[in-house]
Amino acid sequence: MIVVMKQSATEENIQYIIQKLHSLGLDAHLSRGESITIIGVVGDKAKFVSENPQLMEGVEKLVHISESYKVANIKFHPEPTIIDINGIKIGGDNFVIMAGPCAIESYDQLMASAIAAKNAGAQILRGGAYKPRTSPYSFQGLEEEGLRYMKEIKKQTGLATITEVTSCKAAEIAVNYVDILQIGARNMQNFELLKEVGKTKLPILLKRGLSATIDEWLNAAEYIMSEGNENVILCERGIRTYETSTRNTLDISAIPVLRSKTHLPIIVDPSHASGVRDYIAPLSRAAVAVGADGLEIEVHPNPSMAMSDGSQSLNPEDFKKLCDELKPYIQLVGRKF
Amino acid sequence: MIVVMKQSATEENIQYIIQKLHSLGLDAHLSRGESITIIGVVGDKAKFVSENPQLMEGVEKLVHISESYKVANIKFHPEPTIIDINGIKIGGDNFVIMAGPCAIESYDQLMASAIAAKNAGAQILRGGAYKPRTSPYSFQGLEEEGLRYMKEIKKQTGLATITEVTSCKAAEIAVNYVDILQIGARNMQNFELLKEVGKTKLPILLKRGLSATIDEWLNAAEYIMSEGNENVILCERGIRTYETSTRNTLDISAIPVLRSKTHLPIIVDPSHASGVRDYIAPLSRAAVAVGADGLEIEVHPNPSMAMSDGSQSLNPEDFKKLCDELKPYIQLVGRKF
Amino acid sequence: MIVVMKQSATEENIQYIIQKLHSLGLDAHLSRGESITIIGVVGDKAKFVSENPQLMEGVEKLVHISESYKVANIKFHPEPTIIDINGIKIGGDNFVIMAGPCAIESYDQLMASAIAAKNAGAQILRGGAYKPRTSPYSFQGLEEEGLRYMKEIKKQTGLATITEVTSCKAAEIAVNYVDILQIGARNMQNFELLKEVGKTKLPILLKRGLSATIDEWLNAAEYIMSEGNENVILCERGIRTYETSTRNTLDISAIPVLRSKTHLPIIVDPSHASGVRDYIAPLSRAAVAVGADGLEIEVHPNPSMAMSDGSQSLNPEDFKKLCDELKPYIQLVGRKF
Amino acid sequence: MIVVMKQSATEENIQYIIQKLHSLGLDAHLSRGESITIIGVVGDKAKFVSENPQLMEGVEKLVHISESYKVANIKFHPEPTIIDINGIKIGGDNFVIMAGPCAIESYDQLMASAIAAKNAGAQILRGGAYKPRTSPYSFQGLEEEGLRYMKEIKKQTGLATITEVTSCKAAEIAVNYVDILQIGARNMQNFELLKEVGKTKLPILLKRGLSATIDEWLNAAEYIMSEGNENVILCERGIRTYETSTRNTLDISAIPVLRSKTHLPIIVDPSHASGVRDYIAPLSRAAVAVGADGLEIEVHPNPSMAMSDGSQSLNPEDFKKLCDELKPYIQLVGRKF
Repeated sequence: MIVVMKQSATEENIQYIIQKLHSLGLDAHLSRGESITIIGVVGDKAKFVSENPQLMEGVEKLVHISESYKVANIKFHPEPTIIDINGIKIGGDNFVIMAGPCAIESYDQLMASAIAAKNAGAQILRGGAYKPRTSPYSFQGLEEEGLRYMKEIKKQTGLATITEVTSCKAAEIAVNYVDILQIGARNMQNFELLKEVGKTKLPILLKRGLSATIDEWLNAAEYIMSEGNENVILCERGIRTYETSTRNTLDISAIPVLRSKTHLPIIVDPSHASGVRDYIAPLSRAAVAVGADGLEIEVHPNPSMAMSDGSQSLNPEDFKKLCDELKPYIQLVGRKF
Repeated sequence: MIVVMKQSATEENIQYIIQKLHSLGLDAHLSRGESITIIGVVGDKAKFVSENPQLMEGVEKLVHISESYKVANIKFHPEPTIIDINGIKIGGDNFVIMAGPCAIESYDQLMASAIAAKNAGAQILRGGAYKPRTSPYSFQGLEEEGLRYMKEIKKQTGLATITEVTSCKAAEIAVNYVDILQIGARNMQNFELLKEVGKTKLPILLKRGLSATIDEWLNAAEYIMSEGNENVILCERGIRTYETSTRNTLDISAIPVLRSKTHLPIIVDPSHASGVRDYIAPLSRAAVAVGADGLEIEVHPNPSMAMSDGSQSLNPEDFKKLCDELKPYIQLVGRKF
Repeated sequence: MIVVMKQSATEENIQYIIQKLHSLGLDAHLSRGESITIIGVVGDKAKFVSENPQLMEGVEKLVHISESYKVANIKFHPEPTIIDINGIKIGGDNFVIMAGPCAIESYDQLMASAIAAKNAGAQILRGGAYKPRTSPYSFQGLEEEGLRYMKEIKKQTGLATITEVTSCKAAEIAVNYVDILQIGARNMQNFELLKEVGKTKLPILLKRGLSATIDEWLNAAEYIMSEGNENVILCERGIRTYETSTRNTLDISAIPVLRSKTHLPIIVDPSHASGVRDYIAPLSRAAVAVGADGLEIEVHPNPSMAMSDGSQSLNPEDFKKLCDELKPYIQLVGRKF
Repeated sequence: MIVVMKQSATEENIQYIIQKLHSLGLDAHLSRGESITIIGVVGDKAKFVSENPQLMEGVEKLVHISESYKVANIKFHPEPTIIDINGIKIGGDNFVIMAGPCAIESYDQLMASAIAAKNAGAQILRGGAYKPRTSPYSFQGLEEEGLRYMKEIKKQTGLATITEVTSCKAAEIAVNYVDILQIGARNMQNFELLKEVGKTKLPILLKRGLSATIDEWLNAAEYIMSEGNENVILCERGIRTYETSTRNTLDISAIPVLRSKTHLPIIVDPSHASGVRDYIAPLSRAAVAVGADGLEIEVHPNPSMAMSDGSQSLNPEDFKKLCDELKPYIQLVGRKF
């Protein structure tokens, strides 16, 4: 960390900070410029930050040089994390596709989706039992009943399963039914929930918040990991911008940026990113080409009857076509699917 | 709601939609233009939406004309809501100031803050017992112990009290200790929590989400109100934009916009909006002048020792000075303080 | 266009608008709902808009249904535009790469860049002679001297050429030296300049403004096209968002969105979008896969000596490697390069 | 400036940079931390930046500590700039109101606006002769004819005058007719135009770009000032965000932020910021209270007949009412009007 002093800072102000650093067992490196004096802080800056240096006399601002997340940081863990779910691998040179309906509506609807997923080559079935909806008057999900369908269909199809949890209570229930827990964009900074799922043994798919920076997102992953659960999958699903022709703006650059900062696997959700069915195929190709580890795609046996997000769901036929189209791209990037 | 048809839509497509509307008991008003045909939907559009009309043949897009929130909507409740907490009124022609530390650190620190608040004329003491922090390695709050201090100090000073709750469990505990529950920006769409506090009898201060639109915010209020608790206070605390010279961008226009859409009281938090102590006074004056019903301001007996957000806290002396400075402005807008 | 009436609108208000429409030779389609009445406007809405209907008694808002651009609109020109520059084709099933330095610094530097471009297979040489720089104290370009180098090197290498023009005067000069004029992001709504280049016969590459919506961008293209020059190439180069880990946020979804709205060719500039050399290769692959018609990439014979944007430039070796890497992706999407 | 080295940087990398700095006559201050080594650059960093240090071996990133604008910087000019136009003062403890139509439509319309402005106490008449419009099919302005009206009406009313210039040619003409030149938001980074108006002797009102940061805005002011014209007035007119309930988001915090960074006067345009007539009064009060030096407001004798932006224009009666309402607020902040 660097302390930038005001132009008006006195020699006394500067010495005060240096002595404060020394008293905390830290080193201070002083650079005096013509118009600006800065003090480099060497050692565990957390001790110094807790003294609120930004309020000390003569201080103009603090400049943070290093990241606040540790377990998620590639600097301390250069090898990519590969998550193994009964032989299905996420990360490394594997490519994974998670598919299924936004909301579970019935056993038959989920089974039809699972068959569609499996036929196209997807390895993981997604399905929402607890739905966070902007309006309280929209369909809110089948809850535990939906999860029972997930477990049953997993047994019959051999697909792994993932479901979103929106509360600690939902997480406690869901661990008994599925293979991966998903934290949605609206809960990315629901820290109670992050800590709760950090105590489970299941891999956690952490969606990026609606307007979360990449650093905040990695700090949210750190919340989960600091509880002992290091199996976190990051999922880019679009960010909020001024552009309204898509539901969100897919931040495709986030994938190479994350690669340079973390060892965790990264997947892309083109359905929520665009909100428009016709854009899912081109965005999926882009996600493969940019180097993502997988995709999460909404598939519904009959999108025009879907109770949630039908307009961004693919039908089984189009989903199969998409997976077939993606195969040569997946091969080109050197991955197995 | 309006259904805009594609240029390529056939007569059959148009008739299909009209018949669908009729079969649902809705009216259809058809307008044929030279290049565009539209169908106005008259009646309860929810029935039609659940059929996913955006996926019907020939449909280009749907245009929503009316808002999805009802209890919070000024159209159905033109009189402003005034919330009464043991005689302290929020809304109408009253002006309320909530002040106190970001995080409760000790009995003495909270008591010193309460005295500072009271001396300056504030009516409500704020203090955080459960702190949502971006990094898991930051101070997380005193929890129930902090709430006990709140209750004790309320008794001694006569101030009303407000605290943030970050989980359903925290809400269950906090109702026993304070007068108002606060939902923070990061939890604005934590729908489980909204429903939980909607079941309590306490007024709820609902902060705007980091990048929530005004409509999403009012829908979040609707979640609380639809559970039976109509005492919601909205709090503008800045939104996320590309500008980085302030922590967030205070959306001052949100106050007149909300006045035209809802009957709920609206307050402003200039501390979190700016993140810089020097900007609190000018932004507070602006908030009074624009017509807000109150302010929430961070006050700490010794900001340079604060365990959270010290750089945006006022000390007792500066807070008193600010309240004195605000009084003539409050009078000018025709409010009582 | 649709006129949405206020709940409080009187019968008289409604009749006033209908009569106004009729007096302008337009048709009015009235839909009365339980809580909302709307009037559909059929005919040339421009006449009605110029009367400021939003200020008429009883009007709540206007909803625009159709786009304001015409010549650029795919509805009136369904075939993709293919631009031909001495046999180099932009659009259709061709793939084009424009490469070269951000700023022309000397004949030798530009020649070395041209050789690098040609060796790797690029068809068009880019180079800036007039540089728009955020600070007036940064290098501003070689101006006409730089353009002379462009013309000379074009003769020797057979590459087509493109350069940015930042004023009408620069445009007047540049038409004598290069094959394509580029309008930079900061000038996307410099309407005087748009009209000026619209009067030339050269193809115009129009970069998206820093925070332009897709509709504003197409309206800017319309400015050029309405002067008679229909050879416009759109170039996505990232938009401004709250995320700071890249210089801009590449809006990869803009490519499929534009495909559905316009017939103009679309290329991507991954250098300016990311501002980081390491991200250029993955973003280029994504741009090919998503369906762009080409790329514009910064190449400098010695990036560490570049006078502008060196940190986002590729050296000749890395550029050659990138083009080779892209070839199978270009083939996969069914294009020729 | 600070050079942050990669964790993997070798001793040789570090020494290379230090020697490079010395060879340029700069000082290097080295701080070695446990995980990070940084080098402080002391002296004129521009020399070093032109060597592209971000590309030198072992460099992770550069951190800029000081601003790139100088003449506009309060550090080098602590006294506020006060601009005097024939006795009308902008800045200091004066308050100025500029009022008039978005577009000049006729002599009578402009005269009626001038009378309305004067009656209400405004000192400066605004009126657009060259209109930058998003669509080429909208009304584009009366050009020089409009300016002649401005000059004539100035003579008759004694009001000072301001008009927007959208090109160098327009600027050359306008200097003969008006007292202040305005650069619109879309041209804030039209650097040719900035340099051109920097060569005139007239004060320049520089609107903030649609999505310009405060630093970019001050750098744009620097372009004008570096040509010798130091009479620049900054005008906040809202920025682009994701929120759509107002045309732009008025960044009210920009006023105190600018106060801490520059000596230039700052005014607010609530008409363009909100785009809604009903919000102009509350936002004007907020602008006064936050400490702005003035306001620019759209006034039209008959807003419902305006050829541009009628929905955000006030009529003479409402404008008079607003000015009267603002007077006590202006007095409270200690200004003269």
